[in-house]
Amino acid sequence: MTGWIGISLGDVTGIGPEVTLKALAAEPAQDGARFLLIGDAKRLADLNERLGLRLPLQPYAGSDAPGRFFIHNPFTEPLLQDLAPGSPAAARASLTWLEEGARRCLRRELDALVTAPVNKEAIMHTGRPFVGQTEFLSQLAGTERTAMMLLGADDRGRWLRVVLATTHVPLKLVSEHLTRAKVELAIELAAQACADLRLPQARVAVCGLNPHAGEGGEMGREEITTIAPAVEAMRKRSLNVAGPFAADALFYYVFKGDYEVVVAMYHDQGLVPLKMIGFESGINWTLGLPFIRTSPDHGTAYDIAGKGLANPSSMKAAIGLARQLARARA
Amino acid sequence: MTGWIGISLGDVTGIGPEVTLKALAAEPAQDGARFLLIGDAKRLADLNERLGLRLPLQPYAGSDAPGRFFIHNPFTEPLLQDLAPGSPAAARASLTWLEEGARRCLRRELDALVTAPVNKEAIMHTGRPFVGQTEFLSQLAGTERTAMMLLGADDRGRWLRVVLATTHVPLKLVSEHLTRAKVELAIELAAQACADLRLPQARVAVCGLNPHAGEGGEMGREEITTIAPAVEAMRKRSLNVAGPFAADALFYYVFKGDYEVVVAMYHDQGLVPLKMIGFESGINWTLGLPFIRTSPDHGTAYDIAGKGLANPSSMKAAIGLARQLARARA
Repeated sequence: MTGWIGISLGDVTGIGPEVTLKALAAEPAQDGARFLLIGDAKRLADLNERLGLRLPLQPYAGSDAPGRFFIHNPFTEPLLQDLAPGSPAAARASLTWLEEGARRCLRRELDALVTAPVNKEAIMHTGRPFVGQTEFLSQLAGTERTAMMLLGADDRGRWLRVVLATTHVPLKLVSEHLTRAKVELAIELAAQACADLRLPQARVAVCGLNPHAGEGGEMGREEITTIAPAVEAMRKRSLNVAGPFAADALFYYVFKGDYEVVVAMYHDQGLVPLKMIGFESGINWTLGLPFIRTSPDHGTAYDIAGKGLANPSSMKAAIGLARQLARARA
Repeated sequence: MTGWIGISLGDVTGIGPEVTLKALAAEPAQDGARFLLIGDAKRLADLNERLGLRLPLQPYAGSDAPGRFFIHNPFTEPLLQDLAPGSPAAARASLTWLEEGARRCLRRELDALVTAPVNKEAIMHTGRPFVGQTEFLSQLAGTERTAMMLLGADDRGRWLRVVLATTHVPLKLVSEHLTRAKVELAIELAAQACADLRLPQARVAVCGLNPHAGEGGEMGREEITTIAPAVEAMRKRSLNVAGPFAADALFYYVFKGDYEVVVAMYHDQGLVPLKMIGFESGINWTLGLPFIRTSPDHGTAYDIAGKGLANPSSMKAAIGLARQLARARA
């Protein structure tokens, strides 16, 4: 077996199924990877037909069956053809598929999981407590030591890789949420990610929180109280880590290639530069899980769903990274 | 008279004088602009010699004298040759030169002022209250209605222009400092700046403060309470303004050319993307002053001062913009 990649199809009223099929249709045939699509077979078959992709989809019949693209649907409710965007049934299905993918990873039946977008609000409306796919998977895997890495490349192939110390936090609460333990964890996972990516080096640069990284305490003190001690502690553990740096100057040097990865203190600090250059091919990689999980860095995009317009670049990149990581671990 | 550009030379123990001379040596000879360097004549002559620039510097003798490059020094203390970085004498001189430049602008003896970097801490140590050059000039001009615009272009000539609604504020206090009036002012000045730059359009995009622009109030409410009302008010005044948008997605569209200018809510939100692509040629332009003021977007860089290593790109760009704006206003 050269590698099974699971793909949970996400919210079927969004663009997940479409970008998945488009991305798989572009997969190199000589690659040994096999794919288990976890989602609604009828919908996928219709979409495959409508998009003219002719992807040879077949029902999953165990890991020894010949073929490359398989479908499995553990969701037993019927899914109507004309679901409204964000409908409760679509939301419930998306969660079932996500969980199935994760459980198969935990049982080592899959070597990696790629997750298509779900709708957080729609899931919450079904009564399930839900913060996000990352948090859901962390809980299922029984670990809190995870972090989000976002990766993107510009049109010349220059990569940015960012690990977030805090994620979906209102800006005014970021300082409160930021702890030395979170910064240390982000640094540790960032360095490990470089090793997993087989990069020749793992130079980790850490952003300050405040303008000019606080200017020696003149414009905020979190650099002194929280970030610098975390950097120091990780350096003592022999990680190649530097900072905290003024974020505005730092990203220039990172983009030039001086560091492999940046630890950003909050969402927009890391995602603004990343999406500016790699918007269409951004990848989200959850670090610290006991299995490989990547996802495209976009949402359900209800406004263009079902129109055949969705750009599969980000899903292609997410599948490509999952494949690469699975092969490296094998 | 085709235009007088004043240049205050900033902290002489930093790279200001060096980047100024290098930038002026690259000025096109056919351009009608004339330059008044406000700083230490002896130092400039030595540096001119040492850098081998042969810039024809002469003492200022009134606006009718023939020539292009003039020096004037209203600072009467002697300045030793071997001043330590950030010395009090250098700090006092830098402030005198800045004030002289501003006063000449206010008297219309200069058409624009370009300011080389000063050292804020060094000036504060001399006992003068000092927040920054921008604040100093605003006070001198008797206006509080100013904002910082940063401009930069990547190596393919794609511009980003950013106006900041708040500037040098610790991150955790940004929300508190952000008012509807500040956002409105930033939008108004951003639109005016596009007109001053003679851009064919003035499409202003406004960032949210929180991740995903608060996701409808789920992750912060400043978008609802402060930013959206400001955008709405400015739209009623017929400005072409849109937002608040999730900052991470927005900069991608701005970089692609969908908007002329972004209003960012805080320092790093605007400066991270800007400096990432235009680090070496970034320009700071103070909007709202009764005169034109630009400056290079870097500091005194004591570590490389006096070594001939300083890159004049940012100063060249600042002078170029001052010239362009002065010509447009003439």
